[in-house]
Amino acid sequence: MATPATASRPMRADARRNRAALVAAARAEFAERAHEAAIEDIAKRAGVGVGTLYRHFPRRIDLVEAVYLEEIETLAESAATAAADADPFAGLSTWMQAYARYAMNKRNLLKELQEAFERDPGLRLQLRERLVASADKALAPAQAAGVVRADLSGDDLIRLVGGVCMSATATPDQNERLLDVILAGLRA
Amino acid sequence: MATPATASRPMRADARRNRAALVAAARAEFAERAHEAAIEDIAKRAGVGVGTLYRHFPRRIDLVEAVYLEEIETLAESAATAAADADPFAGLSTWMQAYARYAMNKRNLLKELQEAFERDPGLRLQLRERLVASADKALAPAQAAGVVRADLSGDDLIRLVGGVCMSATATPDQNERLLDVILAGLRA
Repeated sequence: MATPATASRPMRADARRNRAALVAAARAEFAERAHEAAIEDIAKRAGVGVGTLYRHFPRRIDLVEAVYLEEIETLAESAATAAADADPFAGLSTWMQAYARYAMNKRNLLKELQEAFERDPGLRLQLRERLVASADKALAPAQAAGVVRADLSGDDLIRLVGGVCMSATATPDQNERLLDVILAGLRA
Repeated sequence: MATPATASRPMRADARRNRAALVAAARAEFAERAHEAAIEDIAKRAGVGVGTLYRHFPRRIDLVEAVYLEEIETLAESAATAAADADPFAGLSTWMQAYARYAMNKRNLLKELQEAFERDPGLRLQLRERLVASADKALAPAQAAGVVRADLSGDDLIRLVGGVCMSATATPDQNERLLDVILAGLRA
């Protein structure tokens, strides 16, 4: 996933800052423009030159993968927050909203991610496992408290929310309403 | 949609029987083998020669479209049955199961349907309108009886169930469980 240059030796602090700024800028650009996001605009938004961008991410797909990994990381953090919520149903609800945002962002990366998945068939599976782990973690406390149906799995959650939010024509309003329906349906 | 030859003059009774047998056979073959269904097997299953098949459906895509129209027709009939159910929630539940079957069958036709939709961009919209009309019809009595949330539309229903059932890796067991979650979530 990481480029050999960045994986083989520790980065200096300014290189780390640049890399983080590039990933953040790319996230924002992909969210706004999907596959039409331009490399030049990403560098500009990050406040670095295009040469710096290419040193960190030699190919566009490297940047797409880094953004997607960041989305999954954000989701994993939401699962930890959800699991720590004193109200387990509210915690699960928060995680589901985070997953809906993740799914909508993934939709913007999908066209280019397909390419990465075709190049590395294990990658899709590996990332899906991280997603399911995140969903399991968010689900467990609500099931332990008996407020959510015991027969549901993290994979079920992902399919329910993802199926709704990955649709190309879904509006934020409709997604919110449908998420609400799903949440109500999860109750034990 | 229909081939000019069949649309321009009434068919004889045996021709109508052959056509119906071909569409039924194609439905079964597509359900079992998706885009790998062979024209020869469809003719054989219908008990007619390949020449007869080609007279009714000159191109493979004509047969795919006829099967898909039949799926939508079946769904419209389910909506009428649902709307006539004395228990409006049970009626809606029956329709949602019919929609789940429709969505799973559509998944098998999707690859070839895309081609038809690209050739005729209005077709997708026109068929989607019939789907939404079917969902609206199934939903109305349950909303009128106050047993289903009033803020939901037929389009919401389609998105909830379709998103879950169109997934390429969904199993019938999981689909049934997720449908159950969605149904519970619809309640007012």
